[in-house]
Amino acid sequence: MEDKKTYASPESFAMNGGKGPSSYAQNSIYQREAAEAAKEKINKAIADHFDIKTLSASLNSVLQNIIEAIKLQYISKGVHTEIPEFIVFFNDHVSNDFNTLFKSLPLNKQYIAAGVPGSFHGRLFPKESLHFIHSSFALQWLSKVPIEVMDEGSPAWNKGRIFYTNAQKEVVEAYATQFAKDIDSFVFARAQELVVGGLLALFIPAIPDVMSNSDTFIGTELDLLGSCLMDMAKVGLGSEAKVDAFNLPAYVTTTKVLNALIERNQHFNFERMEILNNKSKYLTLCNPSMRSLFLRSAFEGVLEKHFGNDIMDELFNRYTEKVAESSFFLNAEANKSIVLLVLLKRNNY
Amino acid sequence: MEDKKTYASPESFAMNGGKGPSSYAQNSIYQREAAEAAKEKINKAIADHFDIKTLSASLNSVLQNIIEAIKLQYISKGVHTEIPEFIVFFNDHVSNDFNTLFKSLPLNKQYIAAGVPGSFHGRLFPKESLHFIHSSFALQWLSKVPIEVMDEGSPAWNKGRIFYTNAQKEVVEAYATQFAKDIDSFVFARAQELVVGGLLALFIPAIPDVMSNSDTFIGTELDLLGSCLMDMAKVGLGSEAKVDAFNLPAYVTTTKVLNALIERNQHFNFERMEILNNKSKYLTLCNPSMRSLFLRSAFEGVLEKHFGNDIMDELFNRYTEKVAESSFFLNAEANKSIVLLVLLKRNNY
Repeated sequence: MEDKKTYASPESFAMNGGKGPSSYAQNSIYQREAAEAAKEKINKAIADHFDIKTLSASLNSVLQNIIEAIKLQYISKGVHTEIPEFIVFFNDHVSNDFNTLFKSLPLNKQYIAAGVPGSFHGRLFPKESLHFIHSSFALQWLSKVPIEVMDEGSPAWNKGRIFYTNAQKEVVEAYATQFAKDIDSFVFARAQELVVGGLLALFIPAIPDVMSNSDTFIGTELDLLGSCLMDMAKVGLGSEAKVDAFNLPAYVTTTKVLNALIERNQHFNFERMEILNNKSKYLTLCNPSMRSLFLRSAFEGVLEKHFGNDIMDELFNRYTEKVAESSFFLNAEANKSIVLLVLLKRNNY
Repeated sequence: MEDKKTYASPESFAMNGGKGPSSYAQNSIYQREAAEAAKEKINKAIADHFDIKTLSASLNSVLQNIIEAIKLQYISKGVHTEIPEFIVFFNDHVSNDFNTLFKSLPLNKQYIAAGVPGSFHGRLFPKESLHFIHSSFALQWLSKVPIEVMDEGSPAWNKGRIFYTNAQKEVVEAYATQFAKDIDSFVFARAQELVVGGLLALFIPAIPDVMSNSDTFIGTELDLLGSCLMDMAKVGLGSEAKVDAFNLPAYVTTTKVLNALIERNQHFNFERMEILNNKSKYLTLCNPSMRSLFLRSAFEGVLEKHFGNDIMDELFNRYTEKVAESSFFLNAEANKSIVLLVLLKRNNY
């Protein structure tokens, strides 16, 4: 009789919790720098597009920066007495370390903080309940590994690798198809959650249009990580079959691909897409140990789930050594990974 | 120029986290039974007082039971297609174990879950953003220990005890005054957060009007816990000065006192106050080890903060022994603690 809407939790790939050396919190300088680079652009977007008339008594957003920009809008329009109270919902997987997140929030914050566990690939919030959504370094995660790449009988079987870089075209296509589906469902879910006129701001890691993944840091190094796992299998730490059965549920898009995916949606006006000028990336990427920690903070959770915790130290030690031996990784110019800023405005459709 | 509203976190006293033997999760049968006893009453309150016309697209509540009761309202009025999406905000201190909470939520839940860290003694949510607030076994916690009871120069100095039971009247009064202040600020904060017509449902542990705290389990046993600390101080585990400097930030009210405090508020109509018939309490209270675990799950956090972790096992072992030796605790009839259900409706004031 009634609509039994359920909010189930899909597969979960959480970043490393806590504040230790391999925690995500200690290894996200790159992400912080990109956020800094985007600050002015988001401020301008809010000044240009954010209609304060659409706001009700509560306003949801995700960053103090965004809050300040919105407040400025009220002040500049002479209605600062109408500045609303802010609630910021922090979303991450159920297995994310929300305890550490909550403890790390500033004591004098000017917003109410809430944690919302669940996958951003599905619905997270009630209909038309949010005014600003910001997704930061999240959409490179797929909702799942494409089934075909784990199927021994399929031409897309990704044997001996853990990522699509340097794989046959069927593997690359399977990953690309999954990414397209995930972007569609993400954009659709966020469209339902935003009020008309609400903004969606995305930071998405990508590579330039002219390049293939095998020319980039992220592609090459994930291949390198896969080769460490294969080396270990050969000396009895794990097995090749186990490596064959594992693939990273991630995808690195290009400006062109993402542009086409976003343009085909009907619920948003495409306000802006651009490459963020991320100044410090060379600095943070050139040290082999830091590079290894960076990767470990992001991928250990999903690797551990498949290979077990006891080979993680060995894996990342080997990885650090391989990175140190590779001249490619010592050449800062070789890093062509970029970060895309996408700004969308919810329309009436 | 603008209103720098901040949401600071006051002192924090969290229940024991995780799922181990001394966790709060494993030692809250008493609380669960009370919730069961209140189910029908809350359902009736919703049927009588909940005006579905006041609901916007998102609806906040705290229990699946409440959600079902509200859904029934829509169905019984023939507007089941208008059943809103539900978001449930779980509030607890910043130091609460939200990770375990999120992991323990059912996969097929019919609401969106959010965690909101912070003290319920202050504002937690934006103005007029909630439709139903439920506070369960929380208001016995004071926002702080009254200053006087820790002041050696004050007639309210609570020397050699950790609670106001059996203390001089100045101590009892200081605690009562703090409780009154805390209820006032709690009720005021919730009034701001609720929409007009919204409901506030409280479960509050209490004792019957005719009794003093020293006649009750909770009073006597906290005295017993204090005496264990004094015994330990005498054999060099801690010091008497340390016991003098510690007081539990908790208060057990009576129907009469609470009634007077609630009645003086202007923002709520007083719909109902009654004693819940909590069937199983005798069962859960009569076993010394369980009694000890029950107390430990609730009070270890605040005790540990003052006395250190290393004497906790010793303390609760001694406590279990004292409970076992006391004939008082073996007499089920001696437990006179009750649970009050209070139902309030936000008015237009």
